[in-house]
Amino acid sequence: MRTLTVDLGDRSYPIHIGENILGDAKLLLPYVKGGQVCVVTNETVEPMYLSRLLNVLTEDFTVSTVILPDGECYKTTETLNLIYNKLLEDKHNRTTTLVALGGGVVGDMTGFSAACYQRGVNFIQVPTTLLSQVDSSVGGKTGVNHPLGKNMIGAFHQPNAVLIDPAVLSTLPERELSAGIAEVIKYGLISDSKFFDWLENNMPKLMACDYEALTFAIERSCVNKAEVVAKDEREGGLRAILNFGHTFGHAIETHQGYGNWLHGEAVAAGMLMAADLSMREGSLSQHDVDRVRNLLVAANLPITSPANMDAEDFIEIMIVDKKVLNERLRLVLLKSIGEAIITEDFSPVNLRKTLSVCKS
Amino acid sequence: MRTLTVDLGDRSYPIHIGENILGDAKLLLPYVKGGQVCVVTNETVEPMYLSRLLNVLTEDFTVSTVILPDGECYKTTETLNLIYNKLLEDKHNRTTTLVALGGGVVGDMTGFSAACYQRGVNFIQVPTTLLSQVDSSVGGKTGVNHPLGKNMIGAFHQPNAVLIDPAVLSTLPERELSAGIAEVIKYGLISDSKFFDWLENNMPKLMACDYEALTFAIERSCVNKAEVVAKDEREGGLRAILNFGHTFGHAIETHQGYGNWLHGEAVAAGMLMAADLSMREGSLSQHDVDRVRNLLVAANLPITSPANMDAEDFIEIMIVDKKVLNERLRLVLLKSIGEAIITEDFSPVNLRKTLSVCKS
Repeated sequence: MRTLTVDLGDRSYPIHIGENILGDAKLLLPYVKGGQVCVVTNETVEPMYLSRLLNVLTEDFTVSTVILPDGECYKTTETLNLIYNKLLEDKHNRTTTLVALGGGVVGDMTGFSAACYQRGVNFIQVPTTLLSQVDSSVGGKTGVNHPLGKNMIGAFHQPNAVLIDPAVLSTLPERELSAGIAEVIKYGLISDSKFFDWLENNMPKLMACDYEALTFAIERSCVNKAEVVAKDEREGGLRAILNFGHTFGHAIETHQGYGNWLHGEAVAAGMLMAADLSMREGSLSQHDVDRVRNLLVAANLPITSPANMDAEDFIEIMIVDKKVLNERLRLVLLKSIGEAIITEDFSPVNLRKTLSVCKS
Repeated sequence: MRTLTVDLGDRSYPIHIGENILGDAKLLLPYVKGGQVCVVTNETVEPMYLSRLLNVLTEDFTVSTVILPDGECYKTTETLNLIYNKLLEDKHNRTTTLVALGGGVVGDMTGFSAACYQRGVNFIQVPTTLLSQVDSSVGGKTGVNHPLGKNMIGAFHQPNAVLIDPAVLSTLPERELSAGIAEVIKYGLISDSKFFDWLENNMPKLMACDYEALTFAIERSCVNKAEVVAKDEREGGLRAILNFGHTFGHAIETHQGYGNWLHGEAVAAGMLMAADLSMREGSLSQHDVDRVRNLLVAANLPITSPANMDAEDFIEIMIVDKKVLNERLRLVLLKSIGEAIITEDFSPVNLRKTLSVCKS
C-alpha cells in the first residue's frame, strides 16, 4: 500500500492507495471521530461494494445509509435533501462522519452535504471510479450543478482521508475507465512530462486494467494533484491549471445535457482543443499536438467536439463559466508538454479556428 | 460613527455603526471587489430602503436585485434558488459581491448563498432589524432551516463588512424591537454584568427607540459578540455561550412552527428557563432570576413557554438540536449574571422542574 499526504496544515489528510483496502478497518476507523456514520452511495455501487464497507463498521457505531440515484443528472440541490433528510431523521449530530462510496457525483454531493450539515462535519472519500480516484476525491472541491452551469453551487471542504482501492476498477465499464484516463493524461500534460512519456508506453496496460500500472498511474496523478492543492487550496491562482481542457469540456457537457457525454470524455476533447490553441499561439509544436491526439485515441477517448455544437455555442456558454473573470475569458494553455499556463492573452481569431478545426 | 473590528486574521472585517450610513458610498464601496453586485432584500424592506442603497451603486457597477418573500418560513433551500437563479441569469462571476439588506433571514440566506455560489464569493451585511444588527450579521454563521431542525444546513462564511444604521429601526414594528432586545440582554447575562446593570436603568429609552441608547446597546452587543467569535470562530467551545437560551428557544420555534414565535421571543423565554435551571443547580440566586425576569418583562418579552408544549415536547426536540453531542444534552447556564458556562452536568430532575415551572 502507498500513502501520500495532502499538505494543508491542520487540515492535512492521507491518501491511501492499495488493492482490497475497501474492507480494511484499520484504515477507515481512525477517521471516524464520533459514534455516528452515514454512508452515501448510489444504486449501481451499492450491490457491489456497500456490504464490504459496512462490515468494517461494527456494532459500536450507529450507521445510516443513503442510496442515491446514479448519474450526473441527479447532482442537484434536490438530491442533497435525500442526504439531509436521512441525517436528521436518524438524529446525526455534529460529530457524525459521512463516507462517500462511489464516483465523482457521489463524492461531490457527499462532500457538499458534509460541508453544510450543521455547518460542517467530517467526511471520508472512498472513490470507486478511476475518474474520482485521480481527481475529484482529492482537493476538497465539492458541489452540485445548476441548470445554468456545472458545479456552480458548492464549497471547499477537505475530506479527513481518501481510501483508493484499484481493485474496484475491475467492475468499471470500459467507457468510464477511458473517461478516468483522460484526467490521468491531464496530469502528464500540465505538470509531469515524464509521466506523459510513461503513459505513451503503458496505455495498453491501463486499458487492460492491469492493477500494477493502474496503481502507478493513480499514485502519480494524486501526487501531482496534491502538490497543486497544497500550494493553492482555494484556486486563487495556480490551482486553475487543473482545469486544463475543462472550460471547453464544461461547455460540451452543458450544451449536450449533463450525463450524455461523460465528464472525462468532454475533458479529452477539451484538452485537444486547448493543445490545438496552444499550437496556434506558438507554444506547442504540431508534433506535440499529434502526441496528445494519439494518446487520447489510444485511450479510446473523443478528440472532436459534438457535431451539433458550433463555435458560437462554445463562446456563449464559456462566458458564464467560472473561469471567466470580469468578462474576459481565461484559459489554461500549454507552454510545453508538462507545463501549463493560465492566460487571457490569446487571439480570438485563433480560438475560433480551434473551435472549427476540432469539430467532428 | 463607531467602528469595531472582528479580529479573524486575514478574514478580519469592520463593523461600522452610525445613523444614516445606509446610503454612504465611502463605507460600502471599498468592500465591493469586482464590477458586479447583487443586493438581496425582502418585500417588506425593499420599498423602505432599497433605493437608498442602490443610489450608492453608480453606473460603474452591474447591479442585480433579488426580492425574497418575508418570513422565517421562507428560510429554506428552495428560496436559496431564487438567489442562485438570479446570479446565474445575470452571469455573475467569482468576483461578484452580495449585499444582504434586511433582517436575520435575509442575512443568513444571502450569506449562505455567498458561501456556496461558485464555492464562495464576497458579501456585505446591511442588517435592518435590531436582532440582526446585534447578532446574526456578525460572526459568519449562515444557513437555512430544515423541516426537522432550525439552521441545520449552513456554512461559516464571514462577511467582508457589516454596516449598521440604527436610524432604520424607526420603521421596525415594536414586537421586533423587543425581540432584538432579547439578544441584547443575552450579552449582559453571559459576559457583561455592567452592561446588564445599564440595561436595567435604560430599558425605557431602548423601548422608545432612543438612537443614542440604541447605538450604545448595539455597540456593546457587537463588542461582546466580536470578542467571542475572535476566540472561537467555528464554535469548537467558547462560542457556544452565545447559544444561551437558544436550545430551549429553538425547541419552542420548532414546536410552534417557524415564524409564529419570533426568534428573540423564543430566546427570551429560553433565557429565563436557563436562568431558572441555573438557580436550581445552585449557581444563581432567586434574586438574580427575578432580575432576569423583570428585565424581560420591561422589554415586553415572553417569560413562559407556549401553553401547548410540555416537558416531553422540549426534550424530544432538544435531542436532535445541534448542541447535543453524542446523545448527551449540553446547555449554557449562568455561574452569575455576566458569566456563562457550557455544561452537560445538570440534574434531569431539575431540568424537568424548570420545564414545568416555566410553562404558561
